[in-house]
Amino acid sequence: MTVTEFELISQYINSQSLSRSDVLEGIGDDCAILKVPENKSLAISMDTLVEGVHFPVNTSAYSIGYKSLAVNLSDLAASGAKPAWASLSLTMPESDEKWLKCFLDGFFALAKQFNVQLVGGDTTHGPLSISVQAHGFVQQPLLRSGANDGDLIYVSGYLGDAAAGFDLFSANDIKHKACLERFKQPLPRIELGLAISDIATSCIDISDGLVSDLGHICQRSQCGAEISLAAIPLSEAFVQYFKQPAYDKALGFGDDYEICFTVAEDKKEVVKHIAERLNLKLSCIGAIVSDKEIRFIDSDNNKVEIKKGYEHFT
Amino acid sequence: MTVTEFELISQYINSQSLSRSDVLEGIGDDCAILKVPENKSLAISMDTLVEGVHFPVNTSAYSIGYKSLAVNLSDLAASGAKPAWASLSLTMPESDEKWLKCFLDGFFALAKQFNVQLVGGDTTHGPLSISVQAHGFVQQPLLRSGANDGDLIYVSGYLGDAAAGFDLFSANDIKHKACLERFKQPLPRIELGLAISDIATSCIDISDGLVSDLGHICQRSQCGAEISLAAIPLSEAFVQYFKQPAYDKALGFGDDYEICFTVAEDKKEVVKHIAERLNLKLSCIGAIVSDKEIRFIDSDNNKVEIKKGYEHFT
Repeated sequence: MTVTEFELISQYINSQSLSRSDVLEGIGDDCAILKVPENKSLAISMDTLVEGVHFPVNTSAYSIGYKSLAVNLSDLAASGAKPAWASLSLTMPESDEKWLKCFLDGFFALAKQFNVQLVGGDTTHGPLSISVQAHGFVQQPLLRSGANDGDLIYVSGYLGDAAAGFDLFSANDIKHKACLERFKQPLPRIELGLAISDIATSCIDISDGLVSDLGHICQRSQCGAEISLAAIPLSEAFVQYFKQPAYDKALGFGDDYEICFTVAEDKKEVVKHIAERLNLKLSCIGAIVSDKEIRFIDSDNNKVEIKKGYEHFT
Repeated sequence: MTVTEFELISQYINSQSLSRSDVLEGIGDDCAILKVPENKSLAISMDTLVEGVHFPVNTSAYSIGYKSLAVNLSDLAASGAKPAWASLSLTMPESDEKWLKCFLDGFFALAKQFNVQLVGGDTTHGPLSISVQAHGFVQQPLLRSGANDGDLIYVSGYLGDAAAGFDLFSANDIKHKACLERFKQPLPRIELGLAISDIATSCIDISDGLVSDLGHICQRSQCGAEISLAAIPLSEAFVQYFKQPAYDKALGFGDDYEICFTVAEDKKEVVKHIAERLNLKLSCIGAIVSDKEIRFIDSDNNKVEIKKGYEHFT
């Protein structure tokens, strides 16, 4: 059955059960017309996932749909923003109704969880690729700049689970479900971003690996960092899978979509309280230093070289 | 020379000379942080251009950059919105500095003309494709719904010039410059959208051809239309090139990015005044009718069948 672009869109978009009162016009006109609360700023993020580059060719449509929204919500989380709307531009090689339905099931499952309404976008013909723009509201945005000498550096969850998940997925291995899930369907740390928005001095989400992403904080904050490898949170599954604490994988691969943030030392107790309230592991992995180097230190106090994260075009 | 993603972005993005006061944080953080005026709504549009689908493979980087923004500004125009910001997601097969520079030259040339600041986006590795999200402000949005029985139907400029331009471009023919320009670098009708925002009962931009796009107005407004073929504005170059008034091309090809709008009959003089003020051709091509058919009528008052516009996945 051949379905036209317009039919395809209207047919499946109705599976979106969500309808926000700040959406004056949603899908179906030249533009979406939206209302931002008067005392808030708009936070926006746009990321593209390309088949074979950002996800393996055999990834399920559901996971692709979920993850294309998740990576953008993760950016909102890192800015301390509350998600509101998304636009989706989907480029598909052919009209495949079953694939599109599964894709939107994944997209809408995550959207529903964070009260995000799909308000517009585009479907086009071409090699599989997905661009999503996410919109959220923020009062006091978290930025990469702002980290100060002596600030403590925290990360959420475990680092490297997505790296293990990628290997497991590629090997068609269904062991270590948590790692597989973190790779395929990472939960954006929205509640954490909101909780730390008035105490964090800087923040970023870990998409390219801690080495790269902490590097962005240091660059924008004009500082360096000293990280204790022993303090890096590694899951049991990760260590079991790699048969060692594979720091290159944990800190260089990325795709974890955990949050890295800095706070003044006297906020330690507040962070502990937030971790308990959100039931989320938050680990202090080191501190900001004034010289502009990022050092990784082992338990014998020796500097260890860690390979940098993923970069396109290299 | 191999350039990393981060270097590529920061190196060329600085060629953007524009800096708006409502951009609290632009490029370089997880999210852009933006301020919408309190008495305005946000209008957003997202469109993707794929090589070989939306533009021929040999299109210049400058034209691709220009057009990727133009098609989105055209949506803002059709909503009566004033452009403000854009995000750009660029997927490139390889790191090509010269190409990227020309692409951004085209993008920024148009952006500057409408005071649009690039506030974020993404560069990724993959088959050439460009997604742009444009943001604008609107007080009283123009919608596709709202056309009433008896309303007059207007279009801006000439229809079909882009169709001729496409043929000329494909044949590497540099005759009929105006047609070539309308295909390669269509000027979005922003001023027109703003000027008619309090008189038009419905509005759309002509991207898929008048047959399709007027069809959207009729569908959303629950009405039909009667169009006089003799009233369709065809440029001299168009008629010369096709050696006849090729209505299938003029009304079915699309890509003109002109504006189609409806007004109550008593607004005729106001429209005339707007056309003079903007120095823009505005042609009344027919009227809205209550039965749900779109009829094209020739000078002998006979119905003429016109082929429908471009649709993906057919």
